[in-house]
Amino acid sequence: MMSETILRGLRERDPRGIARAISLVEENDPMADEILSSLDDSLVDQAMVLGITGPPGAGKSTLTDRIISRYRSLGKRVGVIAVDPSSPISGGAILGDRIRMMGHALDKDVVVRSMATRGRLGGLCAAAGAAVRILAGSGCSVIIIETVGVGQSEMDIIRLADITALVLAPGLGDDIQAMKAGLLEVADILIVNKADCAGAETLAMDMESIAREGGKEKDRVNVCMTVASEGRGTDELLAAIETVDISHRETGERRTRREKAYDLEVLDWALEMIKPSIIEKIEKWDHVRKGAPRLQAARLLGQE
Amino acid sequence: MMSETILRGLRERDPRGIARAISLVEENDPMADEILSSLDDSLVDQAMVLGITGPPGAGKSTLTDRIISRYRSLGKRVGVIAVDPSSPISGGAILGDRIRMMGHALDKDVVVRSMATRGRLGGLCAAAGAAVRILAGSGCSVIIIETVGVGQSEMDIIRLADITALVLAPGLGDDIQAMKAGLLEVADILIVNKADCAGAETLAMDMESIAREGGKEKDRVNVCMTVASEGRGTDELLAAIETVDISHRETGERRTRREKAYDLEVLDWALEMIKPSIIEKIEKWDHVRKGAPRLQAARLLGQE
Repeated sequence: MMSETILRGLRERDPRGIARAISLVEENDPMADEILSSLDDSLVDQAMVLGITGPPGAGKSTLTDRIISRYRSLGKRVGVIAVDPSSPISGGAILGDRIRMMGHALDKDVVVRSMATRGRLGGLCAAAGAAVRILAGSGCSVIIIETVGVGQSEMDIIRLADITALVLAPGLGDDIQAMKAGLLEVADILIVNKADCAGAETLAMDMESIAREGGKEKDRVNVCMTVASEGRGTDELLAAIETVDISHRETGERRTRREKAYDLEVLDWALEMIKPSIIEKIEKWDHVRKGAPRLQAARLLGQE
Repeated sequence: MMSETILRGLRERDPRGIARAISLVEENDPMADEILSSLDDSLVDQAMVLGITGPPGAGKSTLTDRIISRYRSLGKRVGVIAVDPSSPISGGAILGDRIRMMGHALDKDVVVRSMATRGRLGGLCAAAGAAVRILAGSGCSVIIIETVGVGQSEMDIIRLADITALVLAPGLGDDIQAMKAGLLEVADILIVNKADCAGAETLAMDMESIAREGGKEKDRVNVCMTVASEGRGTDELLAAIETVDISHRETGERRTRREKAYDLEVLDWALEMIKPSIIEKIEKWDHVRKGAPRLQAARLLGQE
């Protein structure tokens, strides 16, 4: 498929064209740059990018499904990038497939793309950023990035979002506690899902107090209670998202985040472009693997 | 504290010296290189580095605690690097602290260091690698790296280990499914913890079949059933670890992994050394944030 064909496919919202365009990015194909350069930047500017993160078991996928349905009922075309911790070799695309199966399979205005975090050619952040652009270019006015919010690179992806919602649920165990603090820092909206389960109120209070300790002003902590399995709380959540969106537009926060996100993508690409030459140098280099690796790196780069 | 004092502290197994040395690495202090260069390489070579990974809620910390106790009863000094997904700003060190509290607090031959994945100056892989060296240099013959096995950088850390054990438990929900495939590829030993719970046998069979599909030969799939809360299965697990260790030494796999791990650290340091100059370039660069970020990166690097 030529880039012109793919670009027409994007304009015509052809699922195959969209899938092909994102694959080109993932394959580091130079044609991807042509496509990304030819996209309508105003569509990218206008789209709202919503990050949904949280630990496994919090109900992110079910909640995402509810959010998709709600935006669809408002007539919006929705793109979903499901960042999938599994490998492309032996399983990938499971989260994405699951969402697809959950009721939007026949809806051409819901475009789901899953991205594996492992076995990648390029940087995850760079690829996800490109996918956001492509989805926006194909007319998606809402783009959801869903990640299991744990790893370092997953946190970087969340920085691509205009608005970030952190989903937690009661009863997820102790490890979750350790994650919360880090995630709360980046969240604009805190969602307590499974709000009908024991411990939900305590969790909500807990989250509010951690968020405040982390330096957030009280009026910036938005806590939403949801029961995604029954669709409860989705309206309130969408209202909260809209409130944050308006506030971010008014204060300039939205623009600031977009600029930071763009530069993060540039950095990610730059590092990816430099990486192969360093790997090649290391492979060709007859070095003794002893002592401080940083000194070896300095020697390698000639910065000794 | 001067590097000579710190080095003496390491030799004398002084907890403050060890803590200071790892902090110097995390702070990118040049003194860290002096210390790392002066360590006894044979201690680093001899230590066994065991990676323990798995999703939140699988019981990794309890199991790690059991493994520590067992190695302690064999007279071994044990180091633990707990990679903590929370942030150092508002909470960090929770996993590490928890392990410390669990019965080894007064034991000077159990050294626990937690490392946050976020808000870092340097690369996580580089820092964890240095911590392994420092712990080995302070006489730890077993070094456990515990991570929540989800993110990309966390997977890289696991590549620092000589032997990797993946801990799963029944009833952790659907998201876990998505992680398993990717994690199984790197695991030498599969642990089904909470083996007294419903679904444990099914999970064990499931894991074996995914591992085999992923290309592992049947005789290389080691599945251990444990109930860490009661200490059940720990002996069998240690036996499995020893079997894998002996096999890796005989086949040369251990040496191969060590060399790869070393080069991975060098790569991580090299990228970290290059990163600030790229960030500075991006910051100083009067660029229009539109179009393909990869082209902007190429322009920035002069590779257009």
